[in-house]
Amino acid sequence: MTRTAAVVGVGLIGGSMAAALRRRGFLVRGLDVAPGRTETARRLGLVDETPDSLEECVRDAEVIVLAAPVDATIALLPAVDGVADETSLVLDVCSVKGPVVDAMSRLPGVARMVGGHPVAGTERSGPETADADLFAGRAFVFCPAPATAPDVLERACALARSIGAEPVVLTAGRHDATLARISHLPQLASTALALCLQPGDAAIAGSGLRDMTRLALSDPALWRAIVLSNGSNVTPELRDLSRRLEQLACLIEAGDAAAVERALREAGIRARELRREAPA
Amino acid sequence: MTRTAAVVGVGLIGGSMAAALRRRGFLVRGLDVAPGRTETARRLGLVDETPDSLEECVRDAEVIVLAAPVDATIALLPAVDGVADETSLVLDVCSVKGPVVDAMSRLPGVARMVGGHPVAGTERSGPETADADLFAGRAFVFCPAPATAPDVLERACALARSIGAEPVVLTAGRHDATLARISHLPQLASTALALCLQPGDAAIAGSGLRDMTRLALSDPALWRAIVLSNGSNVTPELRDLSRRLEQLACLIEAGDAAAVERALREAGIRARELRREAPA
Repeated sequence: MTRTAAVVGVGLIGGSMAAALRRRGFLVRGLDVAPGRTETARRLGLVDETPDSLEECVRDAEVIVLAAPVDATIALLPAVDGVADETSLVLDVCSVKGPVVDAMSRLPGVARMVGGHPVAGTERSGPETADADLFAGRAFVFCPAPATAPDVLERACALARSIGAEPVVLTAGRHDATLARISHLPQLASTALALCLQPGDAAIAGSGLRDMTRLALSDPALWRAIVLSNGSNVTPELRDLSRRLEQLACLIEAGDAAAVERALREAGIRARELRREAPA
Repeated sequence: MTRTAAVVGVGLIGGSMAAALRRRGFLVRGLDVAPGRTETARRLGLVDETPDSLEECVRDAEVIVLAAPVDATIALLPAVDGVADETSLVLDVCSVKGPVVDAMSRLPGVARMVGGHPVAGTERSGPETADADLFAGRAFVFCPAPATAPDVLERACALARSIGAEPVVLTAGRHDATLARISHLPQLASTALALCLQPGDAAIAGSGLRDMTRLALSDPALWRAIVLSNGSNVTPELRDLSRRLEQLACLIEAGDAAAVERALREAGIRARELRREAPA
């Protein structure tokens, strides 16, 4: 019997999930609020079918992936809960997990739901940028609600493995605190750095500056939603980074060569640890 | 007649200059304070000859490239001035130009000297990382001293073009103010971001964090010298970035979605401008 997956939101992450599931033999139905995006996804071979309604899309699907921005995902959950099969696996792929898992917890069908976050992506967006290999070797974090059934979590982990990702189970709180530091902070650091630039700087810019401002190219509406919905974790991280930059300014101003070199050396050690331990 | 170049310091930048000049038909002599590095450079085909002394290295050379850290370059200049030919072109490749051009200005032979900075590099160091193509399509900034002869500046620009770079002439003051923002600030932002990391973060880190902490892998002693010798320009830039991060924290704390999205959007515009106008 054909296994069916429903993917709601066929941008970079949803489209990549769709393509990865399709490659694993699923028949994939795609839905999107933006007119034309599902058609693009079908043309690109990301999805098999492009139903017109949420009900048609998710009904009978073995796996339901919600890949809309965080606010839209939360708004979609009650309707999905109303029409999804008892045995469906319902997961989202938002970058912030607390509000989504809380919303899942308020629904009658929470037992078959789990928060998900594949830690992968690029600064690009839209179905044209989707890639079935996007998750290969990357962490796929799962945050169960208190009432998520254990076998549902197991099925989610197996699904992640089947598309080449490494499942990691964390509480939503732990996820959001960690991601604030390792993802939302670098995003906003790139934003703030780009805002420091002045006209004419581009003429002699090197590759370091280009790398450091790549994340600033990301979709503003998407990231506005992410950082605001994780504000309580993001703001202390921003202030930690702000304070460290001020400290470096003070050390340089004081001409404290030993302390400046110590900071540079310690940062290099942390950056190397990241490369040793991070998923490939 | 064979054209001869002397390269003092055969690390990433000096070794790459040596390799690029050698490919243009120069006979290249290499010298380094680190024992074994010149031999490595010769084995790798970066240099032809490995003289034992500064005098042997630079005497009679048509082009003399000083590619040591900024303090060492300043310390070397008087000896180089003492033994270099009247007709030699003497340039350095340090990331900070004010102190070097000032030191050149104090020497009898300043007319044949010019400050240089190829805006290229990676986080790696040593002759093993050298690459004859490192400067292709990149800006090569020249900062003449007030007494640098006009034809010497012209020869330096022609040399840069001959290795594929785009010469840009700036005052040392303008160079150092600009580089503080487009190079030294991103370097220290990467350092500060790496210092924010905590044990265990690596397990779920994505590619964005890896890109944002790549510069933190750079040689600490080299960068300590750069940021301290350009401290008066670097500290205000650090404080500008620090303040922008604090502002973002305040906007997120206040839940000001419109202002957060505006900042993200404006940063994206600046980051895109950088890519449109920057050297390839």
